[in-house]
Amino acid sequence: MPSPQPFIIAVDMGGTQLRAALADAQGAILKRCAVPTRAEEGAEAVIQRMVDAISAVAADGGSEIRVGVGAPGPIDHRSGTILQPPHLPGWDAVPLRSILESRLDLPVRVGNDANLAALGEQRFGAGKGIDNLIYITVSTGIGGGIINDGKLVLGERGLAAEAGHIVIERDGPLCSCGQRGCLEALASGTAIARMAREATASGRETSMVAFAAGKEITAEIVTGAAREGDEVALEIMAEASRALAAGIVTLVHVFNPRRIIIGGGVSNAWDLLVKPAQERLPDLVMARAFVEGLDIVPAALGDDAGLMGAIALWL
Amino acid sequence: MPSPQPFIIAVDMGGTQLRAALADAQGAILKRCAVPTRAEEGAEAVIQRMVDAISAVAADGGSEIRVGVGAPGPIDHRSGTILQPPHLPGWDAVPLRSILESRLDLPVRVGNDANLAALGEQRFGAGKGIDNLIYITVSTGIGGGIINDGKLVLGERGLAAEAGHIVIERDGPLCSCGQRGCLEALASGTAIARMAREATASGRETSMVAFAAGKEITAEIVTGAAREGDEVALEIMAEASRALAAGIVTLVHVFNPRRIIIGGGVSNAWDLLVKPAQERLPDLVMARAFVEGLDIVPAALGDDAGLMGAIALWL
Repeated sequence: MPSPQPFIIAVDMGGTQLRAALADAQGAILKRCAVPTRAEEGAEAVIQRMVDAISAVAADGGSEIRVGVGAPGPIDHRSGTILQPPHLPGWDAVPLRSILESRLDLPVRVGNDANLAALGEQRFGAGKGIDNLIYITVSTGIGGGIINDGKLVLGERGLAAEAGHIVIERDGPLCSCGQRGCLEALASGTAIARMAREATASGRETSMVAFAAGKEITAEIVTGAAREGDEVALEIMAEASRALAAGIVTLVHVFNPRRIIIGGGVSNAWDLLVKPAQERLPDLVMARAFVEGLDIVPAALGDDAGLMGAIALWL
Repeated sequence: MPSPQPFIIAVDMGGTQLRAALADAQGAILKRCAVPTRAEEGAEAVIQRMVDAISAVAADGGSEIRVGVGAPGPIDHRSGTILQPPHLPGWDAVPLRSILESRLDLPVRVGNDANLAALGEQRFGAGKGIDNLIYITVSTGIGGGIINDGKLVLGERGLAAEAGHIVIERDGPLCSCGQRGCLEALASGTAIARMAREATASGRETSMVAFAAGKEITAEIVTGAAREGDEVALEIMAEASRALAAGIVTLVHVFNPRRIIIGGGVSNAWDLLVKPAQERLPDLVMARAFVEGLDIVPAALGDDAGLMGAIALWL
């Protein structure tokens, strides 16, 4: 008699929302739940919310359940330990997998959220059938996931594919990771907002100040102002795009991918950020062969990429 | 009755020498031959010399012979085609594998020389037993080969691992590949010689001028002068080392290797180039975990790395 098909509970620990979903063995989502992450309350509080969210969707899952969790990197993939993520101050070497396994009494796998998004896109989204792809997510930070020869590139301890922390300008602006001139420090939403702050501080005239209406200028405001023709905003987006192009060149020379998938909130500014980078690529690569057959496409799964990747961890 | 053990002929097409070796099925070299490459004479002349060198060692090889060839990248690994290598002007899309197969009537595999050196070091040299390693060769140019999860990273068309052409300083000096600020443009022998030229042209006093005795200052001269305490030479080597550190940070964040193997003539300046980069690494990586357990070691096979890798293509 075949054993019953297992259910999978996927958890995505995002910057604002912590989401859980129950899926069947084909990856179809049957039930969802979302609560605020509130990472600033510390690891213990967030892990408790995670356990509650898992329990909330588990009821319909029968007896055999497996849990996949996506969390901010770097993560030791093999042990399931969250290591000093730059966007989670106070989280340091939290052994998430073993904590969850002991509280839930279920098998748990943990992955870097960007890695899992890459896996989700390859399995269910914009990378179906592609063996060599790079997924880049551009939002507050920049993350990445790399599929080489059909498999996630994890590295010795599962820390690989930190695409946001490749060095583009070695004496450039300080990055959240402590280094200078990372791709994240030059092309992320945070970088775009920093450039806007610098421009207004230097007294340049721009409609972004009025858009912000007394609040901080965000990447979204820069994008909006650029779309309406604001010169300063256009310059900032061109600068971020130029950095993104350099980052893509590095990744293309190192991985020779068939496809690059770009997701994350800031990639909604596709025409301002990604398209100009894509157009410059043939002039930047060391040989035409690197861009022949290479395409750059938007992510297809949106906010669900990480969840779908957490499901794929068990398929 | 078991079929006779095949012999392997390995060919390494270097910048100055073209070398061929006959090896047994265990990778032991039985016979060698070397002729000048003279790449400037064009593809046809070099390929003829290659055929002659192979024939010279083939006589002792019995009936079943396989040929592995290492040549400068980028190379389409799957088709065995040499594509626009920056250091081989006039070679453009040369289908080396099919040309050799038809002239020799033997099965041929062709690989990027730096990829093959990585494979050679992993199989026979400084990377034995290591599943995640990066090989970097620093000489006139900078090449690389990457072993991820036990296998060469080749990418969609076999062009991957061009470690010399990761962008370190996006508006930096022009690289041989046409881009600006590649690792090769900042830390190779050519880059070190360029910095020396710039320093002397700007009128700085340095013993390198006397060392060169009217000729061009080479990376070797810079290294020698630095070892004798020449301030300008020391500054240049420190600058190259700083670029190498940034390149290593990028590669470490992307691949999370267990070991980095550094070879090539310029890496003989280990104390000036590699050691200072290695020492700065813990401060540069985004999380300690990237350097815990990571070692950086010299290549063990010297000039034979590529030959040994060409043998490993068939093992």
